[in-house]
Amino acid sequence: MGRLIKEELVTDFYEYTMANGYYESGRADDILYFDMFFRTVPDDGGFAIACGLDLFIDYIQNLHFDDEDIAFLASKGIFSQGYLDSLKNFKFTGDIWAVSEGTAVFPGEPLVQVRARAVEAQIIETYLLLCLNHSSLIATKANRIVRAAKGRTIMEFGSRRAQGADGAYIGARAAYIAGAAATACTLSDLKFGVPATGTMAHSWIQTFDSEYEAFKTYCEIYPNNASLLIDTYDVMKSGLPNAIKVFKEVLLPKGITKCSVRIDSGDIAYLSKKCRQKLDEEGLTDCKIIASNSLDENIIRDIISQEGCVDSFGVGERLITAKSNPVFGGVYKLVAVEKNGEIIPKIKVSENVAKITTPGFKEVWRIYGETNKAEADLITLRGEEIDFDKPIELFDPIHTWKRKTFDDYTARQLLVPIFRNGELVYNRPDTEEIRAHCQREIDSLWDEVKRFDNPHEYYVDLSQKLWDTKNTLLHESRG
Amino acid sequence: MGRLIKEELVTDFYEYTMANGYYESGRADDILYFDMFFRTVPDDGGFAIACGLDLFIDYIQNLHFDDEDIAFLASKGIFSQGYLDSLKNFKFTGDIWAVSEGTAVFPGEPLVQVRARAVEAQIIETYLLLCLNHSSLIATKANRIVRAAKGRTIMEFGSRRAQGADGAYIGARAAYIAGAAATACTLSDLKFGVPATGTMAHSWIQTFDSEYEAFKTYCEIYPNNASLLIDTYDVMKSGLPNAIKVFKEVLLPKGITKCSVRIDSGDIAYLSKKCRQKLDEEGLTDCKIIASNSLDENIIRDIISQEGCVDSFGVGERLITAKSNPVFGGVYKLVAVEKNGEIIPKIKVSENVAKITTPGFKEVWRIYGETNKAEADLITLRGEEIDFDKPIELFDPIHTWKRKTFDDYTARQLLVPIFRNGELVYNRPDTEEIRAHCQREIDSLWDEVKRFDNPHEYYVDLSQKLWDTKNTLLHESRG
Repeated sequence: MGRLIKEELVTDFYEYTMANGYYESGRADDILYFDMFFRTVPDDGGFAIACGLDLFIDYIQNLHFDDEDIAFLASKGIFSQGYLDSLKNFKFTGDIWAVSEGTAVFPGEPLVQVRARAVEAQIIETYLLLCLNHSSLIATKANRIVRAAKGRTIMEFGSRRAQGADGAYIGARAAYIAGAAATACTLSDLKFGVPATGTMAHSWIQTFDSEYEAFKTYCEIYPNNASLLIDTYDVMKSGLPNAIKVFKEVLLPKGITKCSVRIDSGDIAYLSKKCRQKLDEEGLTDCKIIASNSLDENIIRDIISQEGCVDSFGVGERLITAKSNPVFGGVYKLVAVEKNGEIIPKIKVSENVAKITTPGFKEVWRIYGETNKAEADLITLRGEEIDFDKPIELFDPIHTWKRKTFDDYTARQLLVPIFRNGELVYNRPDTEEIRAHCQREIDSLWDEVKRFDNPHEYYVDLSQKLWDTKNTLLHESRG
Repeated sequence: MGRLIKEELVTDFYEYTMANGYYESGRADDILYFDMFFRTVPDDGGFAIACGLDLFIDYIQNLHFDDEDIAFLASKGIFSQGYLDSLKNFKFTGDIWAVSEGTAVFPGEPLVQVRARAVEAQIIETYLLLCLNHSSLIATKANRIVRAAKGRTIMEFGSRRAQGADGAYIGARAAYIAGAAATACTLSDLKFGVPATGTMAHSWIQTFDSEYEAFKTYCEIYPNNASLLIDTYDVMKSGLPNAIKVFKEVLLPKGITKCSVRIDSGDIAYLSKKCRQKLDEEGLTDCKIIASNSLDENIIRDIISQEGCVDSFGVGERLITAKSNPVFGGVYKLVAVEKNGEIIPKIKVSENVAKITTPGFKEVWRIYGETNKAEADLITLRGEEIDFDKPIELFDPIHTWKRKTFDDYTARQLLVPIFRNGELVYNRPDTEEIRAHCQREIDSLWDEVKRFDNPHEYYVDLSQKLWDTKNTLLHESRG
């Protein structure tokens, strides 16, 4: 069973009016260049995690229009027959570059580049943004939470509060890539191999005549998966004593010491310490303590700073909706057009300086210093000759007197080819590989960039040539 | 084309461990009663709008498990063969009641009630919550924005920032039900009949050698759908003059006066007044002004209070993610079990008083006063005899000395039967009917309840019998 989402129509209507407009004005085949980038890191963090590319690849590979779609668009009465007919054999035939999933990324640099016919490049805008924005949002948030837990386990528990089914199962994938260890969402396990986990809700306990009986029944059925929810009545007076009794009666005789209790309400820091003490006194030192209930990175940091004895955090709504900042503001902006084989850079000016785009068809280089930590990113025009064997001087694109020279460094190109003439040319990593890459990316950042509040602003600089191009266009637009 | 979401697995894993547990402990056929309700209105509003029922009906009707699902669950190694076999012919056979979509609802009252076999009632928890929480969240937020606009048009523009494809197209449906006039999301039009709208992005304009040429080409192709985006370069110096020129050259000779301009950046209140003045001076009084760019109910109220001349607001990320409060905290709690045909109420106590549940199998009545405004809701036990022909006294369930008597009133039952023994017994209204119902619901509320900040707290009271039941159980649990 299931519900079919016609992704080809999860598209802003204006993409079709523009595409038909390009078609009708004889410009369907004009080659356009778009950059997808974002302007600010959610939660005032120091970096974001790019995520969602693999889903976008699926979208591009499947993208076509069936009879129902075309009949629907025709019913609007504003599209030409020629354009509608062209949709019958629509296929994406352009080029796409992107940073790999799980990569640490910074404001202003392209995460995805598209070079395609006008009618194709425009149509894919909405879904590209939706895909990358959603997964990058959740990955970025989940990684904050994972880092706050300082090695303790984070489990994603938010499906019921997610903004739709995609929010749940695709969100769980993003959380896993960013370092969460598991999810409650079963579909995310089937689809992406994110380990699904879970044992009982309060309802399980309430349906029995006693909490003891509920725990005993559960442990008899699942002796190797015994995680008991101990706050249905009273953690210290009822839940914990019943759990200890059942662990001793049912698990220990089988030689099983691995088990856990979960606390879903009350003062987690206080209760977890009390539970730990009692469990240790009873010899249940292998019993882990799980906490849930409206957690996020701030509450987890508080619990840890108060020496709460939590081994594992189940994080729900505040992760799966990125509650404190639920929007990743990726945009898709025209940066160049091709005329007679020449690439003409384009700029979007704005009263709001932050909204001015960086024109041109670009490359992004990450500069690693002597300790293999990422020091800065450098955006260049494609084809620019930069000799990375020589010392390199970077400068701030606004305060151009701020300059820094790197003598001993390596440079890695962040944007890799994904589609070439519509054909997939990328060796898609699986979820585990992406997750491992993400961990390496986090390790490559200085702690100052990873600070939760007021992090160091990582440098994303432009090459001299790109800076000149941008400034020339800016001055021209005001001329 | 499309992507299939296996909704039957968009389910917290613990639903399966519990269901298998019920099965293994010989309690699969125990009849359980669950209430779905919420505890607080997002954004500290005075009411929420129930939404998502129709999607949940689809889910229930389609709910079954295919071979892949069952093999996947089997691979976990913790489920009994008997339980796995029982999933082969799984079908929901229980009863469901719900408030109709578009209804104004308040904290603490059931929006959905489920009476079903333990193995069925548990399995549907996650998707029920996900469906109702998501759509109710967006409907509630969208209605705030619609009310802020005081009769001006609201268009939903948020797909690219939605949390997944469901977030986009199902969110657009919720926004429409709550009073938005249109969406940018094409799929929401095909699926639900939400009018899709849109004309051009900045990229359209940038691909031309001049803004004037871009506008002219557009108006020639779409003379009856001419909405021009005027902030690509400079609204007053370039965008507006070019738009006026093109309207006069292309539209007026055809006798078309209906057109619009859109402002997507800058000071909307100021620019819209300047544009209105200029358009009127030029005789283009039929030209509407559309504003977009990070709008929400607060900014819209500001623009209107400053006499901005905006006819229509395009609202994006702050609506489609309910950015200011992106979680609707609906929960699904066991309220009763059936034993030998008798309904035994169940309560969940908590240190946190707000988390204590109201036990029992219930009815919800809305009390309308003399002016046909909703005055209070009354929750009773099912089967309780209440003579609505006589005056009725309601009392606050916490401060029981606060009492109010209604002499002249009518009472409407909010919960209606949806499924009976697994069969749909509900006449599903279409999207337009739901939208009209929602408008009537808003009209039935006092302005005090609709206030944006610090609204009047609407009364949701318990009958004496239900209050007694709850208090008896509370005391027993402490005894």
